[in-house]
Amino acid sequence: MIAFGGAGCACSSSAGRQRRHSFSVKLATLFSPLLVTFPGLTRMASDMIVYWGSGSPPCWRILLCLEEKALQGYQQKLLSMEKQEHKSAAVIEINPRGQLPAFRHGEHVINESLGAVLYLENQFKAQGTKLMPEAAAEQAVVLQRMFEVPTLHQKSVSVIMYTWIVPEAERHESAVTRNKQALGEELKLWEGYLAKLGSGSYIAGKNFTLADVVFFPNLAFCFRFGLSYDKYPHLSAYYSLVKERPSVQASWPPHWKESDGAQEVLKDI
Amino acid sequence: MIAFGGAGCACSSSAGRQRRHSFSVKLATLFSPLLVTFPGLTRMASDMIVYWGSGSPPCWRILLCLEEKALQGYQQKLLSMEKQEHKSAAVIEINPRGQLPAFRHGEHVINESLGAVLYLENQFKAQGTKLMPEAAAEQAVVLQRMFEVPTLHQKSVSVIMYTWIVPEAERHESAVTRNKQALGEELKLWEGYLAKLGSGSYIAGKNFTLADVVFFPNLAFCFRFGLSYDKYPHLSAYYSLVKERPSVQASWPPHWKESDGAQEVLKDI
Repeated sequence: MIAFGGAGCACSSSAGRQRRHSFSVKLATLFSPLLVTFPGLTRMASDMIVYWGSGSPPCWRILLCLEEKALQGYQQKLLSMEKQEHKSAAVIEINPRGQLPAFRHGEHVINESLGAVLYLENQFKAQGTKLMPEAAAEQAVVLQRMFEVPTLHQKSVSVIMYTWIVPEAERHESAVTRNKQALGEELKLWEGYLAKLGSGSYIAGKNFTLADVVFFPNLAFCFRFGLSYDKYPHLSAYYSLVKERPSVQASWPPHWKESDGAQEVLKDI
Repeated sequence: MIAFGGAGCACSSSAGRQRRHSFSVKLATLFSPLLVTFPGLTRMASDMIVYWGSGSPPCWRILLCLEEKALQGYQQKLLSMEKQEHKSAAVIEINPRGQLPAFRHGEHVINESLGAVLYLENQFKAQGTKLMPEAAAEQAVVLQRMFEVPTLHQKSVSVIMYTWIVPEAERHESAVTRNKQALGEELKLWEGYLAKLGSGSYIAGKNFTLADVVFFPNLAFCFRFGLSYDKYPHLSAYYSLVKERPSVQASWPPHWKESDGAQEVLKDI
Protein backbone atom coordinates (compact mmCIF):
# COMPACT_ATOMS: atom_id res chain seq x y z
CA MET A 1 0.00 0.00 0.00
CA ILE A 2 2.96 2.36 0.17
CA ALA A 3 2.57 5.06 -2.42
CA PHE A 4 6.19 6.05 -2.57
CA GLY A 5 7.78 2.65 -3.14
CA GLY A 6 10.69 1.91 -5.42
CA ALA A 7 14.26 0.78 -5.46
CA GLY A 8 16.40 1.31 -2.46
CA CYS A 9 19.67 1.87 -4.25
CA ALA A 10 21.31 5.21 -4.86
CA CYS A 11 21.09 5.95 -8.56
CA SER A 12 23.48 7.97 -10.65
CA SER A 13 22.55 10.65 -13.16
CA SER A 14 20.64 9.68 -16.27
CA ALA A 15 22.50 9.33 -19.55
CA GLY A 16 21.02 12.61 -20.77
CA ARG A 17 22.16 14.38 -17.67
CA GLN A 18 25.65 12.95 -18.03
CA ARG A 19 25.96 14.23 -21.61
CA ARG A 20 24.98 17.76 -20.60
CA HIS A 21 27.20 17.47 -17.54
CA SER A 22 30.22 16.85 -19.76
CA PHE A 23 29.40 19.86 -21.95
CA SER A 24 29.03 21.99 -18.81
CA VAL A 25 32.46 21.00 -17.56
CA LYS A 26 34.02 22.43 -20.71
CA LEU A 27 32.09 25.68 -20.32
CA ALA A 28 32.95 25.83 -16.64
CA THR A 29 36.63 25.56 -17.54
CA LEU A 30 36.34 28.48 -19.92
CA PHE A 31 34.58 30.76 -17.45
CA SER A 32 35.99 29.53 -14.13
CA PRO A 33 36.28 30.99 -11.52
CA LEU A 34 33.56 33.42 -12.59
CA LEU A 35 30.22 32.59 -11.02
CA VAL A 36 28.29 34.79 -13.43
CA THR A 37 25.70 32.78 -15.36
CA PHE A 38 24.44 33.51 -18.86
CA PRO A 39 21.11 32.49 -20.34
CA GLY A 40 21.64 29.35 -22.37
CA LEU A 41 24.80 28.42 -20.50
CA THR A 42 24.66 26.08 -17.55
CA ARG A 43 26.14 26.28 -14.10
CA MET A 44 27.52 23.21 -12.38
CA ALA A 45 25.51 22.27 -9.35
CA SER A 46 27.77 19.66 -7.79
CA ASP A 47 27.39 21.49 -4.47
CA MET A 48 23.70 20.52 -4.39
CA ILE A 49 22.35 17.26 -3.03
CA VAL A 50 18.80 15.99 -2.94
CA TYR A 51 17.63 12.89 -1.08
CA TRP A 52 14.38 11.70 -2.58
CA GLY A 53 11.78 8.95 -2.80
CA SER A 54 10.46 7.62 -6.13
CA GLY A 55 6.92 8.85 -6.87
CA SER A 56 6.73 11.38 -4.02
CA PRO A 57 5.31 14.59 -5.54
CA PRO A 58 7.27 16.96 -3.21
CA CYS A 59 10.55 15.18 -4.10
CA TRP A 60 9.73 15.23 -7.80
CA ARG A 61 9.15 19.01 -7.71
CA ILE A 62 12.76 19.63 -6.70
CA LEU A 63 14.20 17.26 -9.33
CA LEU A 64 11.98 18.78 -12.00
CA CYS A 65 13.04 22.27 -11.02
CA LEU A 66 16.76 21.37 -11.05
CA GLU A 67 16.29 20.00 -14.57
CA GLU A 68 14.35 23.06 -15.81
CA LYS A 69 16.99 25.38 -14.35
CA ALA A 70 19.71 23.35 -16.11
CA LEU A 71 21.59 22.92 -12.84
CA GLN A 72 23.82 20.16 -14.15
CA GLY A 73 25.72 17.68 -12.05
CA TYR A 74 23.65 17.92 -8.90
CA GLN A 75 24.08 15.04 -6.47
CA GLN A 76 21.02 12.93 -5.78
CA LYS A 77 20.29 9.87 -3.77
CA LEU A 78 17.18 7.76 -4.24
CA LEU A 79 16.01 6.31 -0.93
CA SER A 80 13.43 3.66 -0.13
CA MET A 81 10.68 4.78 2.22
CA GLU A 82 9.58 1.16 2.59
CA LYS A 83 13.01 0.41 4.04
CA GLN A 84 12.71 3.50 6.28
CA GLU A 85 15.80 5.03 4.70
CA HIS A 86 14.26 8.50 5.17
CA LYS A 87 14.85 7.98 8.89
CA SER A 88 18.59 7.46 8.35
CA ALA A 89 21.18 9.68 10.04
CA ALA A 90 22.20 11.25 6.68
CA VAL A 91 18.64 12.50 6.12
CA ILE A 92 17.92 13.52 9.71
CA GLU A 93 21.10 15.59 9.73
CA ILE A 94 19.55 17.74 6.97
CA ASN A 95 15.88 17.27 7.76
CA PRO A 96 15.19 16.74 11.47
CA ARG A 97 11.61 15.61 10.67
CA GLY A 98 13.11 12.55 8.91
CA GLN A 99 11.16 13.24 5.73
CA LEU A 100 11.91 13.41 2.04
CA PRO A 101 12.85 15.48 0.17
CA ALA A 102 15.95 16.62 2.03
CA PHE A 103 17.83 19.23 0.00
CA ARG A 104 21.06 21.10 0.57
CA HIS A 105 22.92 23.64 -1.57
CA GLY A 106 26.38 23.93 -0.05
CA GLU A 107 25.62 24.79 3.57
CA HIS A 108 22.08 25.99 2.84
CA VAL A 109 19.27 23.63 3.70
CA ILE A 110 15.77 23.94 2.19
CA ASN A 111 13.82 20.73 2.60
CA GLU A 112 10.40 22.17 1.99
CA SER A 113 9.79 21.64 -1.73
CA LEU A 114 7.88 24.89 -2.24
CA GLY A 115 10.69 26.82 -0.60
CA ALA A 116 13.38 24.92 -2.52
CA VAL A 117 11.90 25.64 -5.95
CA LEU A 118 11.46 29.33 -5.11
CA TYR A 119 15.06 29.43 -3.90
CA LEU A 120 16.36 27.81 -7.11
CA GLU A 121 14.38 30.23 -9.27
CA ASN A 122 15.47 33.27 -7.23
CA GLN A 123 19.13 32.30 -7.07
CA PHE A 124 19.45 31.18 -10.73
CA LYS A 125 17.04 33.56 -12.43
CA ALA A 126 19.02 33.93 -15.65
CA GLN A 127 19.64 30.21 -16.13
CA GLY A 128 17.48 27.57 -17.81
CA THR A 129 13.71 28.11 -17.98
CA LYS A 130 12.41 31.35 -16.48
CA LEU A 131 9.87 29.99 -14.00
CA MET A 132 8.51 33.12 -12.30
CA PRO A 133 7.17 36.06 -14.32
CA GLU A 134 7.84 39.51 -12.89
CA ALA A 135 4.73 41.34 -14.12
CA ALA A 136 2.08 41.53 -11.39
CA ALA A 137 -0.77 39.96 -13.38
CA GLU A 138 1.18 36.87 -14.45
CA GLN A 139 3.00 36.52 -11.14
CA ALA A 140 -0.28 36.60 -9.20
CA VAL A 141 -1.66 33.65 -11.19
CA VAL A 142 1.53 31.63 -10.84
CA LEU A 143 1.66 32.17 -7.06
CA GLN A 144 -2.05 31.48 -6.61
CA ARG A 145 -1.94 28.19 -8.53
CA MET A 146 1.38 27.14 -6.99
CA PHE A 147 0.02 27.50 -3.45
CA GLU A 148 -3.29 25.83 -4.22
CA VAL A 149 -1.39 22.60 -4.94
CA PRO A 150 -0.88 21.67 -1.26
CA THR A 151 -4.68 21.48 -0.98
CA LEU A 152 -4.80 19.06 -3.93
CA HIS A 153 -1.89 17.16 -2.40
CA GLN A 154 -3.59 16.83 0.98
CA LYS A 155 -6.90 15.78 -0.59
CA SER A 156 -5.33 13.19 -2.89
CA VAL A 157 -3.13 11.75 -0.15
CA SER A 158 -6.16 11.49 2.17
CA VAL A 159 -7.73 9.09 -0.37
CA ILE A 160 -4.73 7.30 -1.91
CA MET A 161 -2.88 6.75 1.37
CA TYR A 162 -5.87 6.44 3.70
CA THR A 163 -4.94 3.01 5.05
CA TRP A 164 -1.31 4.09 5.38
CA ILE A 165 -2.16 7.24 7.38
CA VAL A 166 -5.12 6.10 9.47
CA PRO A 167 -4.69 3.20 11.96
CA GLU A 168 -7.09 0.32 11.32
CA ALA A 169 -9.17 0.90 14.44
CA GLU A 170 -9.83 4.51 13.42
CA ARG A 171 -10.97 3.91 9.84
CA HIS A 172 -14.52 4.79 8.73
CA GLU A 173 -16.30 4.29 5.43
CA SER A 174 -17.95 7.69 5.97
CA ALA A 175 -14.51 9.34 6.03
CA VAL A 176 -13.43 7.53 2.86
CA THR A 177 -16.60 8.69 1.09
CA ARG A 178 -16.16 12.27 2.28
CA ASN A 179 -12.48 12.35 1.30
CA LYS A 180 -13.29 11.04 -2.18
CA GLN A 181 -15.99 13.64 -2.65
CA ALA A 182 -13.63 16.44 -1.56
CA LEU A 183 -10.96 15.23 -3.99
CA GLY A 184 -13.49 15.12 -6.83
CA GLU A 185 -14.55 18.72 -6.13
CA GLU A 186 -10.90 19.78 -5.97
CA LEU A 187 -10.04 18.12 -9.28
CA LYS A 188 -13.03 19.79 -10.95
CA LEU A 189 -11.58 23.18 -9.98
CA TRP A 190 -8.30 22.36 -11.74
CA GLU A 191 -10.13 20.93 -14.75
CA GLY A 192 -12.01 24.23 -14.90
CA TYR A 193 -8.84 26.34 -14.78
CA LEU A 194 -7.48 24.52 -17.82
CA ALA A 195 -10.81 24.61 -19.66
CA LYS A 196 -10.82 28.41 -19.27
CA LEU A 197 -7.22 28.79 -20.46
CA GLY A 198 -7.79 26.78 -23.63
CA SER A 199 -5.92 24.08 -25.47
CA GLY A 200 -2.14 23.86 -25.16
CA SER A 201 -1.99 25.97 -21.99
CA TYR A 202 0.10 25.35 -18.94
CA ILE A 203 -1.55 25.53 -15.53
CA ALA A 204 -1.01 29.29 -15.05
CA GLY A 205 -1.11 30.44 -18.67
CA LYS A 206 0.84 30.12 -21.87
CA ASN A 207 4.24 29.52 -20.28
CA PHE A 208 5.62 26.67 -18.19
CA THR A 209 6.25 28.10 -14.69
CA LEU A 210 6.83 27.15 -11.05
CA ALA A 211 3.08 26.49 -10.89
CA ASP A 212 3.64 23.55 -13.27
CA VAL A 213 6.76 22.41 -11.42
CA VAL A 214 4.62 22.11 -8.29
CA PHE A 215 1.35 20.93 -9.86
CA PHE A 216 2.42 18.36 -12.45
CA PRO A 217 3.87 15.75 -10.04
CA ASN A 218 0.63 15.80 -8.06
CA LEU A 219 -1.49 15.39 -11.17
CA ALA A 220 0.72 12.52 -12.40
CA PHE A 221 0.34 10.95 -8.94
CA CYS A 222 -3.46 11.04 -9.36
CA PHE A 223 -3.34 9.46 -12.84
CA ARG A 224 -0.93 6.81 -11.56
CA PHE A 225 -3.53 5.87 -8.96
CA GLY A 226 -6.31 5.42 -11.45
CA LEU A 227 -7.85 8.85 -12.10
CA SER A 228 -9.97 8.68 -15.25
CA TYR A 229 -8.47 10.33 -18.34
CA ASP A 230 -11.95 10.50 -19.88
CA LYS A 231 -13.67 12.26 -16.99
CA TYR A 232 -11.02 15.01 -16.90
CA PRO A 233 -10.22 15.76 -20.56
CA HIS A 234 -8.43 19.07 -19.95
CA LEU A 235 -6.29 17.63 -17.15
CA SER A 236 -5.58 14.67 -19.41
CA ALA A 237 -4.47 16.88 -22.35
CA TYR A 238 -2.30 18.95 -20.02
CA TYR A 239 -0.75 15.76 -18.60
CA SER A 240 0.12 14.52 -22.11
CA LEU A 241 1.65 17.91 -23.01
CA VAL A 242 3.85 18.26 -19.93
CA LYS A 243 4.81 14.58 -19.70
CA GLU A 244 6.94 14.94 -22.85
CA ARG A 245 9.16 17.71 -21.48
CA PRO A 246 12.80 16.56 -21.18
CA SER A 247 12.84 17.73 -17.53
CA VAL A 248 9.85 15.51 -16.73
CA GLN A 249 11.27 12.54 -18.60
CA ALA A 250 14.65 12.94 -16.84
CA SER A 251 12.99 12.98 -13.42
CA TRP A 252 10.22 10.40 -14.02
CA PRO A 253 9.81 8.11 -10.96
CA PRO A 254 12.00 5.07 -11.68
CA HIS A 255 9.61 2.49 -10.25
CA TRP A 256 6.78 3.89 -12.41
CA LYS A 257 8.81 2.87 -15.48
CA GLU A 258 8.95 -0.70 -14.25
CA SER A 259 5.20 -1.16 -13.79
CA ASP A 260 1.99 0.47 -14.92
CA GLY A 261 0.77 0.60 -11.40
CA ALA A 262 -2.70 -0.77 -12.21
CA GLN A 263 -3.91 1.12 -9.18
CA GLU A 264 -7.61 1.84 -9.22
CA VAL A 265 -8.17 3.72 -5.99
CA LEU A 266 -9.17 6.91 -7.85
CA LYS A 267 -11.12 5.32 -10.69
CA ASP A 268 -14.53 6.45 -9.38
CA ILE A 269 -13.46 10.02 -8.47
CA MET B 1 -15.83 25.59 19.70
CA ILE B 2 -15.19 27.63 16.58
CA ALA B 3 -11.62 28.82 16.57
CA PHE B 4 -12.11 31.70 14.18
CA GLY B 5 -15.07 33.40 15.87
CA GLY B 6 -15.56 37.11 16.20
CA ALA B 7 -17.76 39.96 15.12
CA GLY B 8 -19.63 39.72 11.89
CA CYS B 9 -19.50 43.39 10.99
CA ALA B 10 -17.18 44.94 8.45
CA CYS B 11 -14.65 47.03 10.34
CA SER B 12 -12.90 50.16 9.16
CA SER B 13 -9.20 50.87 9.46
CA SER B 14 -7.66 51.30 12.88
CA ALA B 15 -6.97 54.82 14.13
CA GLY B 16 -3.26 54.30 13.52
CA ARG B 17 -3.87 53.19 10.01
CA GLN B 18 -6.09 56.21 9.38
CA ARG B 19 -3.41 58.63 10.55
CA ARG B 20 -0.82 57.11 8.23
CA HIS B 21 -3.44 56.99 5.47
CA SER B 22 -3.91 60.77 5.67
CA PHE B 23 -0.13 61.33 5.53
CA SER B 24 0.08 59.05 2.47
CA VAL B 25 -2.60 61.01 0.66
CA LYS B 26 -0.45 64.12 0.91
CA LEU B 27 2.61 62.27 -0.40
CA ALA B 28 0.56 60.67 -3.16
CA THR B 29 -0.55 64.14 -4.26
CA LEU B 30 3.05 65.29 -4.46
CA PHE B 31 4.27 62.33 -6.51
CA SER B 32 1.14 61.43 -8.52
CA PRO B 33 0.89 60.07 -11.17
CA LEU B 34 4.32 58.49 -10.63
CA LEU B 35 4.08 54.91 -9.43
CA VAL B 36 7.71 54.79 -8.35
CA THR B 37 8.04 54.00 -4.66
CA PHE B 38 10.80 55.10 -2.32
CA PRO B 39 11.93 53.44 0.88
CA GLY B 40 10.27 55.21 3.76
CA LEU B 41 7.48 56.57 1.62
CA THR B 42 4.20 54.73 1.35
CA ARG B 43 2.07 53.76 -1.61
CA MET B 44 -1.69 53.87 -1.47
CA ALA B 45 -3.24 50.44 -1.67
CA SER B 46 -6.90 51.30 -2.11
CA ASP B 47 -7.01 48.86 -5.04
CA MET B 48 -6.44 45.98 -2.62
CA ILE B 49 -9.17 44.18 -0.72
CA VAL B 50 -8.88 41.40 1.83
CA TYR B 51 -11.80 39.42 3.24
CA TRP B 52 -10.76 37.85 6.53
CA GLY B 53 -11.83 36.07 9.69
CA SER B 54 -10.71 37.16 13.17
CA GLY B 55 -8.06 34.82 14.62
CA SER B 56 -7.45 32.83 11.45
CA PRO B 57 -3.64 32.55 11.05
CA PRO B 58 -3.72 32.54 7.20
CA CYS B 59 -5.87 35.71 7.18
CA TRP B 60 -3.67 37.38 9.77
CA ARG B 61 -0.54 36.76 7.65
CA ILE B 62 -1.91 38.92 4.83
CA LEU B 63 -2.97 41.76 7.15
CA LEU B 64 0.39 41.64 8.92
CA CYS B 65 2.23 41.75 5.60
CA LEU B 66 0.16 44.69 4.32
CA GLU B 67 1.04 46.57 7.51
CA GLU B 68 4.77 45.73 7.33
CA LYS B 69 4.87 46.79 3.66
CA ALA B 70 3.16 50.11 4.62
CA LEU B 71 0.48 49.53 1.98
CA GLN B 72 -1.84 52.17 3.36
CA GLY B 73 -5.54 52.44 2.70
CA TYR B 74 -6.17 48.84 1.71
CA GLN B 75 -9.80 47.76 1.86
CA GLN B 76 -10.67 45.00 4.29
CA LYS B 77 -13.80 43.27 5.39
CA LEU B 78 -14.04 41.21 8.57
CA LEU B 79 -16.41 38.28 8.10
CA SER B 80 -17.92 35.85 10.58
CA MET B 81 -17.19 32.21 9.85
CA GLU B 82 -19.79 31.24 12.46
CA LYS B 83 -22.38 33.01 10.33
CA GLN B 84 -21.00 31.28 7.20
CA GLU B 85 -20.15 34.64 5.64
CA HIS B 86 -17.13 33.03 3.96
CA LYS B 87 -19.64 31.18 1.78
CA SER B 88 -21.15 34.46 0.54
CA ALA B 89 -21.23 35.34 -3.16
CA ALA B 90 -18.70 38.18 -2.66
CA VAL B 91 -16.12 35.72 -1.29
CA ILE B 92 -16.86 32.88 -3.73
CA GLU B 93 -16.44 35.29 -6.64
CA ILE B 94 -12.80 35.74 -5.54
CA ASN B 95 -12.19 32.39 -3.85
CA PRO B 96 -14.21 29.53 -5.40
CA ARG B 97 -13.37 27.30 -2.41
CA GLY B 98 -15.41 29.66 -0.21
CA GLN B 99 -12.56 30.10 2.23
CA LEU B 100 -10.85 33.01 3.95
CA PRO B 101 -8.64 34.85 3.28
CA ALA B 102 -9.83 36.07 -0.09
CA PHE B 103 -7.47 38.70 -1.47
CA ARG B 104 -7.50 40.80 -4.60
CA HIS B 105 -5.15 43.50 -5.86
CA GLY B 106 -6.96 45.25 -8.71
CA GLU B 107 -7.83 42.37 -11.00
CA HIS B 108 -5.20 40.01 -9.54
CA VAL B 109 -6.45 37.35 -7.16
CA ILE B 110 -4.15 35.57 -4.69
CA ASN B 111 -6.14 33.89 -1.93
CA GLU B 112 -3.43 31.56 -0.74
CA SER B 113 -1.75 33.42 2.11
CA LEU B 114 1.77 32.16 1.35
CA GLY B 115 1.38 33.26 -2.27
CA ALA B 116 -0.12 36.61 -1.27
CA VAL B 117 2.71 37.59 1.07
CA LEU B 118 5.34 36.58 -1.52
CA TYR B 119 3.45 38.64 -4.12
CA LEU B 120 3.33 41.70 -1.86
CA GLU B 121 7.04 41.45 -1.08
CA ASN B 122 7.98 40.91 -4.75
CA GLN B 123 5.80 43.72 -6.08
CA PHE B 124 6.65 46.27 -3.37
CA LYS B 125 10.27 45.38 -2.62
CA ALA B 126 11.43 48.91 -1.92
CA GLN B 127 8.56 49.82 0.38
CA GLY B 128 8.15 49.30 4.12
CA THR B 129 10.04 46.43 5.77
CA LYS B 130 12.29 44.36 3.50
CA LEU B 131 10.93 40.88 4.17
CA MET B 132 13.00 38.66 1.86
CA PRO B 133 16.81 38.77 1.91
CA GLU B 134 18.53 38.31 -1.44
CA ALA B 135 21.73 36.57 -0.27
CA ALA B 136 21.49 32.79 -0.68
CA ALA B 137 22.33 31.87 2.93
CA GLU B 138 19.73 34.17 4.50
CA GLN B 139 17.12 33.52 1.84
CA ALA B 140 17.41 29.75 2.28
CA VAL B 141 16.63 30.01 6.01
CA VAL B 142 13.69 32.35 5.46
CA LEU B 143 12.18 30.07 2.80
CA GLN B 144 12.79 26.93 4.83
CA ARG B 145 11.14 28.32 7.99
CA MET B 146 8.31 29.97 6.04
CA PHE B 147 7.32 26.68 4.41
CA GLU B 148 7.63 24.65 7.58
CA VAL B 149 4.78 26.68 9.07
CA PRO B 150 2.02 24.81 7.18
CA THR B 151 3.13 21.69 9.07
CA LEU B 152 2.77 23.52 12.40
CA HIS B 153 -0.57 24.89 11.21
CA GLN B 154 -1.87 21.46 10.26
CA LYS B 155 -0.68 19.90 13.52
CA SER B 156 -2.13 22.65 15.74
CA VAL B 157 -5.45 22.70 13.89
CA SER B 158 -5.70 18.90 14.21
CA VAL B 159 -5.70 19.34 18.01
CA ILE B 160 -7.43 22.70 18.53
CA MET B 161 -10.20 22.12 15.99
CA TYR B 162 -10.52 18.34 16.30
CA THR B 163 -14.22 18.34 17.17
CA TRP B 164 -14.86 20.95 14.48
CA ILE B 165 -13.12 18.91 11.76
CA VAL B 166 -13.99 15.34 12.70
CA PRO B 167 -17.64 14.20 12.82
CA GLU B 168 -18.68 12.84 16.21
CA ALA B 169 -19.04 9.23 15.02
CA GLU B 170 -15.45 9.24 13.73
CA ARG B 171 -13.69 10.62 16.81
CA HIS B 172 -11.14 8.51 18.70
CA GLU B 173 -9.20 9.19 21.89
CA SER B 174 -6.21 7.45 20.27
CA ALA B 175 -6.23 10.05 17.48
CA VAL B 176 -6.44 12.93 19.95
CA THR B 177 -3.47 11.53 21.87
CA ARG B 178 -1.43 11.00 18.69
CA ASN B 179 -2.24 14.49 17.37
CA LYS B 180 -1.21 16.07 20.66
CA GLN B 181 2.06 14.17 20.67
CA ALA B 182 2.82 15.23 17.09
CA LEU B 183 2.10 18.87 17.94
CA GLY B 184 4.39 18.69 20.98
CA GLU B 185 7.23 17.31 18.85
CA GLU B 186 6.62 20.01 16.24
CA LEU B 187 6.69 22.81 18.81
CA LYS B 188 9.93 21.46 20.28
CA LEU B 189 11.56 21.88 16.86
CA TRP B 190 10.58 25.56 16.75
CA GLU B 191 11.68 26.07 20.36
CA GLY B 192 15.02 24.56 19.33
CA TYR B 193 15.42 26.90 16.34
CA LEU B 194 15.03 29.93 18.60
CA ALA B 195 17.27 28.46 21.33
CA LYS B 196 20.03 28.09 18.73
CA LEU B 197 19.61 31.62 17.37
CA GLY B 198 19.84 33.23 20.78
CA SER B 199 17.97 35.93 22.64
CA GLY B 200 16.25 38.70 20.68
CA SER B 201 16.23 36.76 17.41
CA TYR B 202 13.42 36.50 14.94
CA ILE B 203 12.46 33.07 13.61
CA ALA B 204 14.95 33.08 10.71
CA GLY B 205 17.70 35.22 12.20
CA LYS B 206 18.35 38.76 13.34
CA ASN B 207 15.81 40.44 11.03
CA PHE B 208 12.02 40.29 10.87
CA THR B 209 11.13 38.56 7.56
CA LEU B 210 8.35 36.76 5.72
CA ALA B 211 9.14 33.76 7.92
CA ASP B 212 7.84 35.79 10.89
CA VAL B 213 4.86 37.09 8.92
CA VAL B 214 3.84 33.48 8.33
CA PHE B 215 4.92 31.96 11.66
CA PHE B 216 3.84 34.49 14.26
CA PRO B 217 0.05 34.21 13.72
CA ASN B 218 0.29 30.43 14.17
CA LEU B 219 2.32 30.76 17.34
CA ALA B 220 -0.11 33.34 18.74
CA PHE B 221 -2.93 30.92 17.86
CA CYS B 222 -1.24 28.22 19.98
CA PHE B 223 -0.75 30.53 22.98
CA ARG B 224 -4.35 31.71 22.65
CA PHE B 225 -5.43 28.09 23.02
CA GLY B 226 -3.49 27.49 26.18
CA LEU B 227 0.08 26.59 25.19
CA SER B 228 2.31 26.91 28.25
CA TYR B 229 4.61 29.95 28.28
CA ASP B 230 6.80 28.19 30.86
CA LYS B 231 7.35 24.99 28.88
CA TYR B 232 8.47 26.89 25.80
CA PRO B 233 10.59 29.79 27.11
CA HIS B 234 12.20 30.70 23.75
CA LEU B 235 8.89 30.68 21.91
CA SER B 236 7.45 32.73 24.75
CA ALA B 237 10.23 35.35 24.56
CA TYR B 238 9.87 35.53 20.78
CA TYR B 239 6.10 35.95 21.16
CA SER B 240 6.58 38.87 23.57
CA LEU B 241 9.10 40.51 21.23
CA VAL B 242 7.00 40.28 18.06
CA LYS B 243 3.68 41.02 19.75
CA GLU B 244 4.74 44.61 20.31
CA ARG B 245 5.38 45.43 16.66
CA PRO B 246 2.99 48.10 15.35
CA SER B 247 2.04 45.81 12.43
CA VAL B 248 1.02 43.06 14.85
CA GLN B 249 -0.88 45.42 17.10
CA ALA B 250 -2.72 46.95 14.11
CA SER B 251 -3.79 43.51 12.88
CA TRP B 252 -4.48 41.83 16.25
CA PRO B 253 -7.65 39.66 16.06
CA PRO B 254 -10.47 41.92 17.29
CA HIS B 255 -12.30 39.24 19.27
CA TRP B 256 -9.08 38.36 21.10
CA LYS B 257 -9.09 41.88 22.54
CA GLU B 258 -12.54 41.32 23.98
CA SER B 259 -11.73 38.14 25.88
CA ASP B 260 -8.70 36.29 27.15
CA GLY B 261 -9.90 33.12 25.59
CA ALA B 262 -9.28 31.01 28.68
CA GLN B 263 -8.89 28.09 26.32
CA GLU B 264 -6.95 25.20 27.76
CA VAL B 265 -6.90 22.68 24.93
CA LEU B 266 -3.10 22.96 24.55
CA LYS B 267 -2.18 23.27 28.23
CA ASP B 268 -0.66 19.77 28.45
CA ILE B 269 1.25 19.90 25.14
